[in-house]
Amino acid sequence: MEQYNYLLSLCVILMSTKIFSIISRRAQLPQVVGALMAGLFFGPAVLGALSMKLFGIQFCLTPSPLLSRLAELGVIVIMFTAGMETNIQDLRASGKAGFVVALTGVFVPLGMGAGLMYVFEPGIAMTSAIFVGAVLTATSVSITVETLKELGCMSTKSGNTILAAALIDDILGLICLTIITGMAGEQVNLTLVFMKILGFVGFVVIMGLMFYSFMTWSNKAQDAKNLRRYPVMGFALCLFMAWAAETVFGIADIIGAFSAGMIIAISPKGNYIASKFDTIAYLLLTPVFFANIGLEVTIPSMSLSLLLFTVALVIVSVISKLGGCGLGAKLCGLDMRESYQIGMGMVCRGEVALIVAAKGLEMNVINEAYMGPIIIMIIVCTIITPIFLKDAFKGASQSKEYGISDQFELSDKLDEVTESMLDAETNIYTLLKGRMYE
Amino acid sequence: MEQYNYLLSLCVILMSTKIFSIISRRAQLPQVVGALMAGLFFGPAVLGALSMKLFGIQFCLTPSPLLSRLAELGVIVIMFTAGMETNIQDLRASGKAGFVVALTGVFVPLGMGAGLMYVFEPGIAMTSAIFVGAVLTATSVSITVETLKELGCMSTKSGNTILAAALIDDILGLICLTIITGMAGEQVNLTLVFMKILGFVGFVVIMGLMFYSFMTWSNKAQDAKNLRRYPVMGFALCLFMAWAAETVFGIADIIGAFSAGMIIAISPKGNYIASKFDTIAYLLLTPVFFANIGLEVTIPSMSLSLLLFTVALVIVSVISKLGGCGLGAKLCGLDMRESYQIGMGMVCRGEVALIVAAKGLEMNVINEAYMGPIIIMIIVCTIITPIFLKDAFKGASQSKEYGISDQFELSDKLDEVTESMLDAETNIYTLLKGRMYE
Repeated sequence: MEQYNYLLSLCVILMSTKIFSIISRRAQLPQVVGALMAGLFFGPAVLGALSMKLFGIQFCLTPSPLLSRLAELGVIVIMFTAGMETNIQDLRASGKAGFVVALTGVFVPLGMGAGLMYVFEPGIAMTSAIFVGAVLTATSVSITVETLKELGCMSTKSGNTILAAALIDDILGLICLTIITGMAGEQVNLTLVFMKILGFVGFVVIMGLMFYSFMTWSNKAQDAKNLRRYPVMGFALCLFMAWAAETVFGIADIIGAFSAGMIIAISPKGNYIASKFDTIAYLLLTPVFFANIGLEVTIPSMSLSLLLFTVALVIVSVISKLGGCGLGAKLCGLDMRESYQIGMGMVCRGEVALIVAAKGLEMNVINEAYMGPIIIMIIVCTIITPIFLKDAFKGASQSKEYGISDQFELSDKLDEVTESMLDAETNIYTLLKGRMYE
Repeated sequence: MEQYNYLLSLCVILMSTKIFSIISRRAQLPQVVGALMAGLFFGPAVLGALSMKLFGIQFCLTPSPLLSRLAELGVIVIMFTAGMETNIQDLRASGKAGFVVALTGVFVPLGMGAGLMYVFEPGIAMTSAIFVGAVLTATSVSITVETLKELGCMSTKSGNTILAAALIDDILGLICLTIITGMAGEQVNLTLVFMKILGFVGFVVIMGLMFYSFMTWSNKAQDAKNLRRYPVMGFALCLFMAWAAETVFGIADIIGAFSAGMIIAISPKGNYIASKFDTIAYLLLTPVFFANIGLEVTIPSMSLSLLLFTVALVIVSVISKLGGCGLGAKLCGLDMRESYQIGMGMVCRGEVALIVAAKGLEMNVINEAYMGPIIIMIIVCTIITPIFLKDAFKGASQSKEYGISDQFELSDKLDEVTESMLDAETNIYTLLKGRMYE
């Protein structure tokens, strides 16, 4: 019977993320926060611990290989749709600012993180201190992207800079990790890393040209009326590029997915393809992605000094990213508000931070005791980012012609229009069917 | 690096099922056949065996826990959408015929299968002979449903009878299996089975009333403008009922999913919900479901007498279902062509047959040597059903006002209309966004 439990898990995830999202929205918080809370609440951290205390049995949603795979697919689809919504012109315009923001956003947390370690454990080895710093460098942009999409702020100047910075951040983080693991004992091969990054750029250009030609050809060919093949081919491109990015070029899979999205955005039928991924995202993959983050959390028991360290780590992680990226943005001539928006958008940490920490643990340069604080730091950053981000963009948005609440209303109206179109479509279809079988 | 291989597998599955489907359609075969062939071709059966012979390494798609879970979700979504497209009135009208068809469709294969065993192995124990017969009783309706949907013949009289019969067939098969496993040693508890079936009917009614009231209330409540929650709630209902059917009532999960679909069909916003599952089905779950069937196949090596037995088993399995169900349909007053359509639609075997066989093997009443022939029988039935079914409905459909090819054209036109609607939507959206951020 246990083999069917995944059905119930998915059901609970869909229901709870939806209900918690609705509650979040009523409370003027981004819906993403609700989805994260749902996983935390129904997972081992809250419901699991509670039921253990009350009934002596742990009764909660638990992480499973299926859920983590679906969550991985979820983040790939989020970045893929972000790519499809990105205007290359805009992104290129934000490229220089993005590079500077990413650079300061890597080095300030790295330095401050290492500094914190020297304060708490004065005799610590330099590699260990730097490794904890490295944990703080990796921004997890997917939650920021989902929040920006929800707020409709993806194509603002700040949104584009965040996106550009996050993409470059991943590559810088990669170089950083290569150097640090090299310092900690393994051989370092920076040339190879740069070659792979260059190789990936070439790969994206080649895939782009191939897909563009294929779509142009297919669009002209006689059976161009069958539309389903285009989203399928687009998704296949996304999966292939995500796979290739990780396994061939050693770059994050989400960068591959994002690049695939950008390719599709400029290809014929791009709009049509983009319109199809919305459903698969909100109906299955995105809820699982967000809930799964919460599910993976187990709150460790800690001593007072570790608790103090945790608080300090959280503060350092937030301030260093906010300050570092904000500084970079300011240096590039963005105004104070935009710099704050960008800094806030980059605060989010996620699976990459966890992976770096796990690697440090494996290499014996990070003490196991620090894993608890690191996990809590990631959770706190993940939850506060959307909250502060919404606030940061609210101010910015109200100075424009329409506010955010207006936009929600407009997007709701659009949904209504779409629904009536769909009703019309159903009616036409029923009519046709009726004529056919009468 | 291996942890990312699922991305490549999914990419190959999406590409290959799509390309093979297009080829099938060009060859005037149902697209479902192409999707099945894709899994067979890229799986261990063909590409795996070939690469083993040529290069000494097996290089092919292989079944994985993720793929089988996604395939299970796929068949659940197929049956869920079938439920949403079912008109309860029509189904009720076909109920009596469906019952008779299911009844003859269970007993004729049971008898003929057992008879075949007595011919090939005269001294066989009665339970063993009957068990092989039982393997032949379970129709796997999902492939038939997908073919009927593709042909646009779901709501014909034959289509409705097939659907009704397949649903009753599952329940009869369940009773049958209970009796036979009881005969083979375990305790039999028919009363409990009937109680559970009655309980399930009550459960469906209660869930239906609850969901209907919820949707009516939600439709009137003030925030009824947010549409995304409806498909999410519908999917949650589907998953919950599939889970409950299996674990609480001991009935197949697909019957639970189908019932959930029927509930949604009669609820407010039912059309809107139904329109959303098309994408998630063709973009991810259905291709994986069909490819996975092919992937699970490994062709066993067999002796000449077993080969003979295999041929006989295939013939008996096809003829007994076709004859049994056709007879039942004829008895209910359907005409010759309709009886043939119904018989052909019920020929398809699938995972249930495999499960029954595995249970027999486990209980030592089915000899292991027969597993190879049984697997081949299932593959052959699965592949020929859509081919003959298309042919059977082609004749029937041409006597109506429109032919099948007309319908494809109409549905293509509809797709074009939808696309231009979507383009309009994108334009409106871009316009609104532009006004908002200028």
